[in-house]
Amino acid sequence: MCGIFGYLNYRVPRTRKEIFLTLIKGLQRLEYRGYDSAGIAVDGPGKDQTADIRLFKKKGKVKALDEEIYKSDSIDLNAELDTHFGIAHTRWATHGEPSAVNSHPQRSDKNNEFVVIHNGIITNYKELKKYLVSKGYEFESDTDTEVIPKLTKYLYDNRESDYVSFSTLVERVIKQLEGAFALVFKSVHFPGEAVATRRGSPLLIGVRCQYELSTEQIPVQYNRGDSRKDELQEKNFRNRVGSTNALHSVHDRMAVEFYFASDASAIIEHTNKVIYLEDDDVAVVMEGKLYVHRIKPKAGEDPVRAIQTLQIELQQIMKGKFKAFMQKEIFEQPESVFNTMRGRICFESNKVLLGGLSDHLKEIKRCRRLIMIGCGTSYHAGLATRQILEELTELPVMVELASDFLDRITPVFRDDVCFFISQSGETADTLMALRYCKQRGALTVGITNTVGSSICRETDCGVHINAGPEVGVASTKAYTSQFVSLIMFGLIMSEDRLSLQSRRLEIINGLQKLPELIKEVLALDDKIKGITEELHHQRSLLVMGRGYNYATCLEGALKIKEITYMHSEGIMAGELKHGPLALIDKHMPVIMIMMRDACYNKCQNALQQVTARQGRPIILCCQDDPEISTMAYKTIELPQTVDCLQGILSVIPLQLVSFHLAVLRGYDVDFPRNLAKSVTVE
Amino acid sequence: MCGIFGYLNYRVPRTRKEIFLTLIKGLQRLEYRGYDSAGIAVDGPGKDQTADIRLFKKKGKVKALDEEIYKSDSIDLNAELDTHFGIAHTRWATHGEPSAVNSHPQRSDKNNEFVVIHNGIITNYKELKKYLVSKGYEFESDTDTEVIPKLTKYLYDNRESDYVSFSTLVERVIKQLEGAFALVFKSVHFPGEAVATRRGSPLLIGVRCQYELSTEQIPVQYNRGDSRKDELQEKNFRNRVGSTNALHSVHDRMAVEFYFASDASAIIEHTNKVIYLEDDDVAVVMEGKLYVHRIKPKAGEDPVRAIQTLQIELQQIMKGKFKAFMQKEIFEQPESVFNTMRGRICFESNKVLLGGLSDHLKEIKRCRRLIMIGCGTSYHAGLATRQILEELTELPVMVELASDFLDRITPVFRDDVCFFISQSGETADTLMALRYCKQRGALTVGITNTVGSSICRETDCGVHINAGPEVGVASTKAYTSQFVSLIMFGLIMSEDRLSLQSRRLEIINGLQKLPELIKEVLALDDKIKGITEELHHQRSLLVMGRGYNYATCLEGALKIKEITYMHSEGIMAGELKHGPLALIDKHMPVIMIMMRDACYNKCQNALQQVTARQGRPIILCCQDDPEISTMAYKTIELPQTVDCLQGILSVIPLQLVSFHLAVLRGYDVDFPRNLAKSVTVE
Repeated sequence: MCGIFGYLNYRVPRTRKEIFLTLIKGLQRLEYRGYDSAGIAVDGPGKDQTADIRLFKKKGKVKALDEEIYKSDSIDLNAELDTHFGIAHTRWATHGEPSAVNSHPQRSDKNNEFVVIHNGIITNYKELKKYLVSKGYEFESDTDTEVIPKLTKYLYDNRESDYVSFSTLVERVIKQLEGAFALVFKSVHFPGEAVATRRGSPLLIGVRCQYELSTEQIPVQYNRGDSRKDELQEKNFRNRVGSTNALHSVHDRMAVEFYFASDASAIIEHTNKVIYLEDDDVAVVMEGKLYVHRIKPKAGEDPVRAIQTLQIELQQIMKGKFKAFMQKEIFEQPESVFNTMRGRICFESNKVLLGGLSDHLKEIKRCRRLIMIGCGTSYHAGLATRQILEELTELPVMVELASDFLDRITPVFRDDVCFFISQSGETADTLMALRYCKQRGALTVGITNTVGSSICRETDCGVHINAGPEVGVASTKAYTSQFVSLIMFGLIMSEDRLSLQSRRLEIINGLQKLPELIKEVLALDDKIKGITEELHHQRSLLVMGRGYNYATCLEGALKIKEITYMHSEGIMAGELKHGPLALIDKHMPVIMIMMRDACYNKCQNALQQVTARQGRPIILCCQDDPEISTMAYKTIELPQTVDCLQGILSVIPLQLVSFHLAVLRGYDVDFPRNLAKSVTVE
Repeated sequence: MCGIFGYLNYRVPRTRKEIFLTLIKGLQRLEYRGYDSAGIAVDGPGKDQTADIRLFKKKGKVKALDEEIYKSDSIDLNAELDTHFGIAHTRWATHGEPSAVNSHPQRSDKNNEFVVIHNGIITNYKELKKYLVSKGYEFESDTDTEVIPKLTKYLYDNRESDYVSFSTLVERVIKQLEGAFALVFKSVHFPGEAVATRRGSPLLIGVRCQYELSTEQIPVQYNRGDSRKDELQEKNFRNRVGSTNALHSVHDRMAVEFYFASDASAIIEHTNKVIYLEDDDVAVVMEGKLYVHRIKPKAGEDPVRAIQTLQIELQQIMKGKFKAFMQKEIFEQPESVFNTMRGRICFESNKVLLGGLSDHLKEIKRCRRLIMIGCGTSYHAGLATRQILEELTELPVMVELASDFLDRITPVFRDDVCFFISQSGETADTLMALRYCKQRGALTVGITNTVGSSICRETDCGVHINAGPEVGVASTKAYTSQFVSLIMFGLIMSEDRLSLQSRRLEIINGLQKLPELIKEVLALDDKIKGITEELHHQRSLLVMGRGYNYATCLEGALKIKEITYMHSEGIMAGELKHGPLALIDKHMPVIMIMMRDACYNKCQNALQQVTARQGRPIILCCQDDPEISTMAYKTIELPQTVDCLQGILSVIPLQLVSFHLAVLRGYDVDFPRNLAKSVTVE
């Protein structure tokens, strides 16, 4: 969940200040991935003819680091560097409290011979640490990461021949590591060189060059075993064949810039040409040339890494007129939901087409069971659409939390179809569940918002929800777009069932009107803000509903938890009498969802029970429901749509409630404490 | 969820005081079903040759009513009544706040011509009320029940012929009612007569007689249509054939006593001879004779209602040396778990036999899917055993909340096997889910604690968990016995799988040692009490775990919610980073479950994340786990057992935590506000 950024300028002269600005800006773009501390490493002026690495690290958000840098007077900001490699990191703590010493880059020793930035978790760090301590290494942090630079130095100091390449060294390091990581290395021994690698965590490389590039596809090179005697040969080999196996500028000075980052948002303002690394790729930049190595070939693997051209625009990830990204993304929902349907539903012919699924549709229709797998909000999108998918597909539908699904070693069969729902497409548990299901022969379908993400690449087929980049840590527009995507899947599955045609038509008509109805709901913002003014001093909050809106309750409660830190819980109204009713008295704030659907009467029973205990419920209901208005303490009246789509409308007031509560309580909406946008470790 | 009690003494002289004592005691036994107000109806001294009914009603527990009765000086407590019928009711509000006017008996008019006690919900009461108001009836309460006595009077006043029998009247009334009910009627027009009926809510009749009874089986009588002209004939007919179709004493004075109650606990101290009524039975006692009527025969129905002999003893439902029933039941678990296994597992031969399933085992083994359905704690028992059932049966296992399962109109198929888990066997949602699944041709299996309960009778086969009566509203020993029952089911399903034999053996050995290990856990009571002393002022509490212990977290949090009214929530540790981690700071109390099983390392990651945010976790762990002890704020160390049984041990400290918290906070453990033991309405 940390953010990694690196910047290498090769024969492109930059002042130190320009380099700092690039590194800090890169971190700020990645800050949504974690922001409890940050750090950077750059070359110092050097002394006695040797290179020298300077570290700047600071607890807090990237802004704090930015201020720290300019306090130093030992470094000449105007010095121009022809070639330089700098790395930067914004952290989300997993091992060790947020502090300067625990932040990255982590280093090999007091001389900073090797420095490393890391996103992920090293699960065998205790064993490695024990070994290195026995060899005399002194550890300064509580992180798992620190073993990596120390192990690198250990292997460097104990190399058998005089020369070892930086990439070979890193290959030896990662052979010893267990867990998930994306890593970028810098060393005083290899000035101007960069090594980057990943296993389980995302990493991509951007390339900017004003001249022609040597290739559009980098061939993967395989090491010939791990024989340490080959190193000199290897060096010769590289010098000889280098140019044909590497990406570089064909200009005579070979001027080029490389950017390393956890995701595209940090790169897109510099270049739209990127290379996605695969697990266990080791990418190295040496003398301005980018190579991709692997230890050994794997069957069926792509033998090249192609340069891809990204289409997203930076302005898409800027805040605009809103106070926070989250608020912006809530208000984008009329458009994002429309974009999810764009080109897929033809409202004239009532046809639905999902291009990403069409090759596998026959196979999907033959399956015995659908399993929807996700974490957090994505899990709720599965729950929210479970009933309508059961209705439209006439199949059993299971919805599973990815972590629990893996913990339980759940039986999966060849005739199952498994859906993996993840905004980022990199959620570690969901990705591992995907690999688990693939192994067992199930057909896998991705529902993601991120083209080129791991889930996107590893599934058999899938749907891009096309909600646009989501920056707020609390997911909003991705939820409603996931919801609509799954509904569209249901519509496709039922297209040749005669008995379901009127239901399909009703839903398609409902989808067409949805963007307008979302605008109507957003127009209630001021009223909702008024209601939150009464709630923001509370410590607990219950959100109740059932049927199609149970998932809405869970999702609303999660939003409130995430950004307001109030203990809020989604409660199945049908379970009220089996325990939660004991919590109800005149002090406990309760939000109830009571839409005019098949559960309306049962919800009224729940409401009776709450008011009989002097609860003062705030009720989300349909417009013009006089019966409810008399029993409610307050109402938020929503336009009515088809029962199975109502959850898209009813979740929005809860998104707004959580936003306003967080603002009133004085919290940073886009950067909730302890959380990060994309959870790429277990 | 209310408690119904009635007492009819026919030619058995009792003073008014004795009658009051019997009625109040009956209510006290039923108080666990609801206790927000109570009321009784008895005969007054009468005036002008006509009968006269007196009502006593009071908000609060039964004790408050008891005090109220003796304040009245208009009634002679020492008057001896040769024949008398009194009714009594303890209420759990569903419509209208707890108050004297809303408590039962509800009456037809100011003269109390008809009075009724009711358990259940009348769903069409609004329509009936509107009609009766239009006919000039004035309503005094906010209850749904009040329409019943008023409708009875309306039908009585508008009868076509002079004579109408009490039972015919009631048959006409219930024809108009929708919803769920158990009802007992008393009227000034039918002195000494009782009519009782049910649909969906439980009701049984006890009979006490020191002489021989006329029969062991009461034949059901069917009405010949609803022709009002037949009434005189009917009366003659009854007089003529009465004795052969009715249950009565064969002694010349025909002295006999009848008890009407929601369950056996209120009857068992008077008699162990009981008759269970079926849905739509109308039972009437007239001149000391008990008849059972039905409007029309139903195919396949039992033509008689047999007298059954109950084996439970009253002392089983008394508190003993404990402060509360719940505490007693927690400490009974070594025995109750043993009783669940008694006669079913042979530890010498490692054979498991569940007699209640053996006729259907072949069919169960052929199924495609297991679905476990329950509410509250029973749902958690399904979740807790899901993984091991998936492992032992190699089948997909779904666990469903009964209410949500019905709301979703979940697809169910003929090759599904559905389990219905309910302590009382009367839980309304679970019972309706059972009927839903039966209709769709699934094989149904009951897992109940109550012989003769509706779920017990309506399922194809089942397992009695044999935990003994559970009185505490918060279920404890029923949970662990449900857990063990489902494990035994898994063992039976895997008995002929060669690859699973060592696993089976491990589990059987684990089960054998379980009662002893439970005793070890109970010995930690003082330590646990000490820990709760630090927690009881908190307003929120999180309980975290994953894998086999996720259900333990949900169940522990439910216990705490139910009886301490603290907002406590069970959190899947794997979901921490997807939201709940935002709640963690040094103020939020956290209980974590970290047993030495396959999830241990992943739980350690969660622990790292919590401590990195300065959380101070109280950790339930295995004995001798030094690594955890250093990171925990406090530990509760439990003996280790087989991974899939560990949840039985780890839930007990949480049961004890909830008990001690409730006592420290000054709450009545056995009677949590707003809740009732057996939830017999939707």
